Amino acid sequence: MSTFLGELAAAFPAGQLETDPALLAAYAVDQGPVLEHRLPVAVVFAERMEDVQTVMRLAAGHSVPVVARGAGTGVSGGAHATEGCLVLSLERMNRILEIHAEDEVARVEPGVVNADLNAAAAEYGLMYAPDPASYRISTIGGNIATNAGGLRCAKYGVTRESVLALDVVLADGTLIHTGRRTFKGVAGYDLTGLFVGSEGTLGIVVGATVRLRYLPAEVETLAAFFPEFTTAAAGVLAVGKARVQPAIMELLDGNTLIQLDREQGSNLRSRGGALLLIQTDGFAARTEAEIIRRELTGLGATITAEDYEEAVRLVELRRHSRGAEVDDDFRVGEDVAVPRSQLVHYIAELQRIAADHGVGLKVVAHAGDGNLHPTFWVGSGEVQKVPALNAALDESIDVGLALGGTITGEHGIGQYKVRWLPREQREEVLELQRSIKRLFDPHGLLNPGKALPAGIEA
Amino acid sequence: MSTFLGELAAAFPAGQLETDPALLAAYAVDQGPVLEHRLPVAVVFAERMEDVQTVMRLAAGHSVPVVARGAGTGVSGGAHATEGCLVLSLERMNRILEIHAEDEVARVEPGVVNADLNAAAAEYGLMYAPDPASYRISTIGGNIATNAGGLRCAKYGVTRESVLALDVVLADGTLIHTGRRTFKGVAGYDLTGLFVGSEGTLGIVVGATVRLRYLPAEVETLAAFFPEFTTAAAGVLAVGKARVQPAIMELLDGNTLIQLDREQGSNLRSRGGALLLIQTDGFAARTEAEIIRRELTGLGATITAEDYEEAVRLVELRRHSRGAEVDDDFRVGEDVAVPRSQLVHYIAELQRIAADHGVGLKVVAHAGDGNLHPTFWVGSGEVQKVPALNAALDESIDVGLALGGTITGEHGIGQYKVRWLPREQREEVLELQRSIKRLFDPHGLLNPGKALPAGIEA
Repeated sequence: MSTFLGELAAAFPAGQLETDPALLAAYAVDQGPVLEHRLPVAVVFAERMEDVQTVMRLAAGHSVPVVARGAGTGVSGGAHATEGCLVLSLERMNRILEIHAEDEVARVEPGVVNADLNAAAAEYGLMYAPDPASYRISTIGGNIATNAGGLRCAKYGVTRESVLALDVVLADGTLIHTGRRTFKGVAGYDLTGLFVGSEGTLGIVVGATVRLRYLPAEVETLAAFFPEFTTAAAGVLAVGKARVQPAIMELLDGNTLIQLDREQGSNLRSRGGALLLIQTDGFAARTEAEIIRRELTGLGATITAEDYEEAVRLVELRRHSRGAEVDDDFRVGEDVAVPRSQLVHYIAELQRIAADHGVGLKVVAHAGDGNLHPTFWVGSGEVQKVPALNAALDESIDVGLALGGTITGEHGIGQYKVRWLPREQREEVLELQRSIKRLFDPHGLLNPGKALPAGIEA
Repeated sequence: MSTFLGELAAAFPAGQLETDPALLAAYAVDQGPVLEHRLPVAVVFAERMEDVQTVMRLAAGHSVPVVARGAGTGVSGGAHATEGCLVLSLERMNRILEIHAEDEVARVEPGVVNADLNAAAAEYGLMYAPDPASYRISTIGGNIATNAGGLRCAKYGVTRESVLALDVVLADGTLIHTGRRTFKGVAGYDLTGLFVGSEGTLGIVVGATVRLRYLPAEVETLAAFFPEFTTAAAGVLAVGKARVQPAIMELLDGNTLIQLDREQGSNLRSRGGALLLIQTDGFAARTEAEIIRRELTGLGATITAEDYEEAVRLVELRRHSRGAEVDDDFRVGEDVAVPRSQLVHYIAELQRIAADHGVGLKVVAHAGDGNLHPTFWVGSGEVQKVPALNAALDESIDVGLALGGTITGEHGIGQYKVRWLPREQREEVLELQRSIKRLFDPHGLLNPGKALPAGIEA
């Protein structure tokens, strides 16, 4: 290891190579629950593609695992340090290389913050559509690593649908270019799609060409407060039956409203027991909002059309609805997605599960996508209740799968959800993915232990 | 081979196994240009997933290559028979297994014709968005194999964006399920995306779960006739600058209009030298059409808003714009896509190339995507002009690539475009794809010689 560090020190100046214990600790974890805490042997801050190639060549030569990370805002432990690893931070590769308004594309380095790209694109009347709740701090590279979703993905698609081309450094340091600058293209296998969502286990994304969309001419925001959470969920299906596609359709339960009121000084809970927050956009924003208002009023909602400032505030409140706390032993957020028809039933099941196990529950959902973020919790420090918390979590996963759902709609498997993947995918599918992993990373150095469970022989 | 045929005969009744020479000839080619004509040793008509598994197990046991096909409407030779192969037709697996209106998904067998799925979905106010010009006769399985595009893909995305899950039979006969029924999901690598567009070289798609979209409440159709083709192309950029996203934006040049008039009895060419055919849809269809009309009138277009019948007729005319003839030695259609800003310039280049080489040219384009279908031709039987035809083709490919384009926007590499792929993708990217191919198909039995060029060692 000392030889490895020596070679790193020869390749990188002190400002790019860090071994300070406090810094190692800060870069040891992302925002996901920690199962096994490990410190990296060093952190390298890449400033250009060649730095990533250098790191991978040295790491390959010394069989040192490499965990790449952007802003570290992931919530599945995909960027947690692993035993004896080097952490490779891409946050300094944060240049927007090009915004081409006529081509409607941008080329960026992986460390560009999502909100910064959106601000730059807005000057041209364009936007980068995928908007995870963390968009103000998370990076495009991290968004790509997890195939991040977001609020407006029901209408505009997830990260995969906005990524046209990638520059990727492979496990041996080779730099490749996948995809193309055009919106359409079917030459060769979809390597771009294979890297998107692979959580740094197949290669390290060092550049991306992304598609931009038109900033909508008009936006309308409706806040529909319902007495009951399940009725609010039924509203999602009513909007679908009216054949209206909102840009945003977020569902917040009563406990989420209470928490937001406490942390943000709002008074949402006094307005209803659950909130369905809807934005329509485009030239028909008003027409669509009117149709939605009619449908939801019929279901018993109290609806306010929000002025611009209040609308921005409400959507920002939603983006903060995870609250200030990070997941820990006593509080875990989930990410199940279910087929839309199962939304109401699954929410009722979540409530039953929480009651059965005597744990707390709050739920927010990207309801248009059927993607729910329930958070289960017990009192901080109530160690004796942790088994009940974990039992509730496990049951919520199993019920979601039984309803035709998936264990992760947008957060990724990371390290935390690896144990659940065999409940969703059969062994032959897992083994096929392991064989792809071995093909790209024969020595298992790229973010080991993430994204896929180890095979029986491993 | 006789043992293989004997085992096939034992496994399948006569109606499912055919060796009649006329039938073999009919199933030897798709609609793409033929470079080397080969007859299959037999054709098996699969009627269920198990039939495909049986075929693959027998083929693997006897090292017989298998070329899967749907309706055979491909135009890149992706379904051409190869030396000593078995052709596996999936056209009888044509059941729509489920349309779930609340989940907004359909489950289909691969032989379902695109138009049949759309007709069934329309009863629920839904549609299957990808609509290749061949949608009345091409199958969902074939659409998936080529990641087919179509007219309304600029707004609604290509086939990949509508495929949620696949059932796939692998080279050894194993049946796997990839993806999920939910709109979003990031569990594991994107195997679904890897199979979409892989042209039957990695596995055989025997079932698909697809996402349905809302049938638009309103549709407006504008026919914008321009004196010059390049001005019409500039209109595409003007619509983009107005930040309006049409559902359909098709560009037809003067020669295409003449051909349509001759074959279909229309009088398009008398109305202008080029046609930009635009459909807006959704609740803002009329507003968007008005904005587009204003922009294009400013560019000198003569614009008619079409009534429903005439609109349907115009769009159907566009879908027939390849004409009655299939590509052959004297006439070849291409499929380059370029970044949108290069559309006008590339069209001018195509005109120059045709003039330089003394060959005929007509062009239609899915202009919103920058995807062009130029057809070059010489007189039927003018063998002495074939070198000029091929030189024009090659130059059109090179110029498209130099402008940042791709050699195939939606038709696929198949057999015909394999020779051009190394002009677009570097050797290390090709080799990575070959290694994926070897992983999925170690004995090279799945549609050999398609999608990828052979490696140096092969």
